[in-house]
Amino acid sequence: MAQYIILDIGGTQIRAACFPTESQIPTKVVRIPTQGDGIPPLDRLTNLIAEVWPSPDAVAAIGVAAAGPLDPYAGIVIEAPNIPGWINVPLKQHLENRFHVPVYLGNDANMAALGEWKYGAGRGHHHLIYMTISTGIGGGIIVDDQLLLGARGFAGELGHITILPDGPLCGCGQRGHLEALASGPAIALWAENELKCGVASILPSSGSLTAKDVGHAAEQGDPLALAALSRAGHFLGIALANYLHIFNSSIIILGGGVSKCGYLLIQPLKTSIAEHVLSIDYFNEVTITTAALGDDAGLMGALALTQARAGR
Amino acid sequence: MAQYIILDIGGTQIRAACFPTESQIPTKVVRIPTQGDGIPPLDRLTNLIAEVWPSPDAVAAIGVAAAGPLDPYAGIVIEAPNIPGWINVPLKQHLENRFHVPVYLGNDANMAALGEWKYGAGRGHHHLIYMTISTGIGGGIIVDDQLLLGARGFAGELGHITILPDGPLCGCGQRGHLEALASGPAIALWAENELKCGVASILPSSGSLTAKDVGHAAEQGDPLALAALSRAGHFLGIALANYLHIFNSSIIILGGGVSKCGYLLIQPLKTSIAEHVLSIDYFNEVTITTAALGDDAGLMGALALTQARAGR
Repeated sequence: MAQYIILDIGGTQIRAACFPTESQIPTKVVRIPTQGDGIPPLDRLTNLIAEVWPSPDAVAAIGVAAAGPLDPYAGIVIEAPNIPGWINVPLKQHLENRFHVPVYLGNDANMAALGEWKYGAGRGHHHLIYMTISTGIGGGIIVDDQLLLGARGFAGELGHITILPDGPLCGCGQRGHLEALASGPAIALWAENELKCGVASILPSSGSLTAKDVGHAAEQGDPLALAALSRAGHFLGIALANYLHIFNSSIIILGGGVSKCGYLLIQPLKTSIAEHVLSIDYFNEVTITTAALGDDAGLMGALALTQARAGR
Repeated sequence: MAQYIILDIGGTQIRAACFPTESQIPTKVVRIPTQGDGIPPLDRLTNLIAEVWPSPDAVAAIGVAAAGPLDPYAGIVIEAPNIPGWINVPLKQHLENRFHVPVYLGNDANMAALGEWKYGAGRGHHHLIYMTISTGIGGGIIVDDQLLLGARGFAGELGHITILPDGPLCGCGQRGHLEALASGPAIALWAENELKCGVASILPSSGSLTAKDVGHAAEQGDPLALAALSRAGHFLGIALANYLHIFNSSIIILGGGVSKCGYLLIQPLKTSIAEHVLSIDYFNEVTITTAALGDDAGLMGALALTQARAGR
């Protein structure tokens, strides 16, 4: 039985899974931490692949979702978060030389979009926006059933849209990007600052917060926490209204840890989209939903990529 | 010799041209004003088509570029500017019933993008952003050699991105859109307000200005006019940096009357893009240029659409 080996190289863990070529049910999954144990990262990765390798000659292709900027055409990891020294690593070439099967590589947010489109919340939609709201904000776009990659494969950076010129500093060095206003750390930082200004809240006023803390306090009706989610939803809605004008998509899928705040984030987000679209025609048939595949989205997207490419 | 009849229905004039199916040189072009002369608009249009019709049985298809929101899939003009009463006109169906050939319809800014990609400044590029800066700001996007249409065909509204929340009112009813900051009327209005505040300029302080006036004064080194173009270029650059993050395109083509301000607008625009991209990788191989086809872009795009569809 021919199989694909699919890898998801995340910031904290690497997963490897075997899938029969026509199936979405893995026959084997192995996880290891991303951080090294003295063995060079490429060796750890090839050891992991060898470990899940089902039997000689049984693997038709390898698919990889990886965090960080990468070149999906050449198969080069430009920079891998949490893997010291992984700069411009020709991963595709390395794995093809080692294992003698075709290797396909994609950015993890793009792969999550592809996974949700093929196997998750976006099934049946041809025009899809996937946005992951977590430590950062990333995304992926499906246009006419195709993943949007762009000239060099860097497309879909949905968190790096200027929402407030001269606003708070973004991790990328620019100001006022959506990521600097509505990511998990941005939500927590805003709440911390409000606490420092003396706003009453059940949140602890000393120590650092997380968006999860804010989410829990909001569930208990804490006004400051509710305001923090409402503010993030407001900015997310401005960005998503822009994206609907640009892409005229039929579904928006929200992933990442912050999306688990659920209704208390998504309701103000929806209100903000409705307030900001230039015509209700851009919004009134649009589905807004959370991701269905959770942590598996990137893996399932790399599977979808591999099935599409290797199956040609 | 089989021919296509191509129409461009603009706000002020309607053009009809005949092209041999494999050619981009028209054998005949006829123009009429868009505004009626007592004859119903659909009748004027069919009369125009009949007038350019080369000979019985010689027409393989009709292609139409039209201003205003429309449904390119169903071929319905949702609202035509300057044609009173043209609301939800099933133009495709009407023309197919009357002329018994396939009819293809596209939004004029989208068609201009397609025209520049196939026959103009964007030849050879696979990922293209076309932005027209005129009375309004519109656009069209080519992704992987395909025109981006979206679920209902409304994609590519590049002027309706929020750049300044709570900024000046846009024609669409929202605030702070790019169109409200950098279109021709927005540039002129800003200059008028500066004049009212007493800023010295060679521009006349009474009466209303146009962006063309501002452009001429800028060419003569007028500081207020230069500042007006620089400000517009700044906002355009913020929007275009966003679009490069989203699309990772290899070329940006600027069309419309305001783009004729040339260097004095485009230099600050380029500076602003460079200042606002999250990584220079998004910008350092990107061509920024003005449209090559001028007023013919929409017509040539409708030709490209018709060639692609009818030639299948």
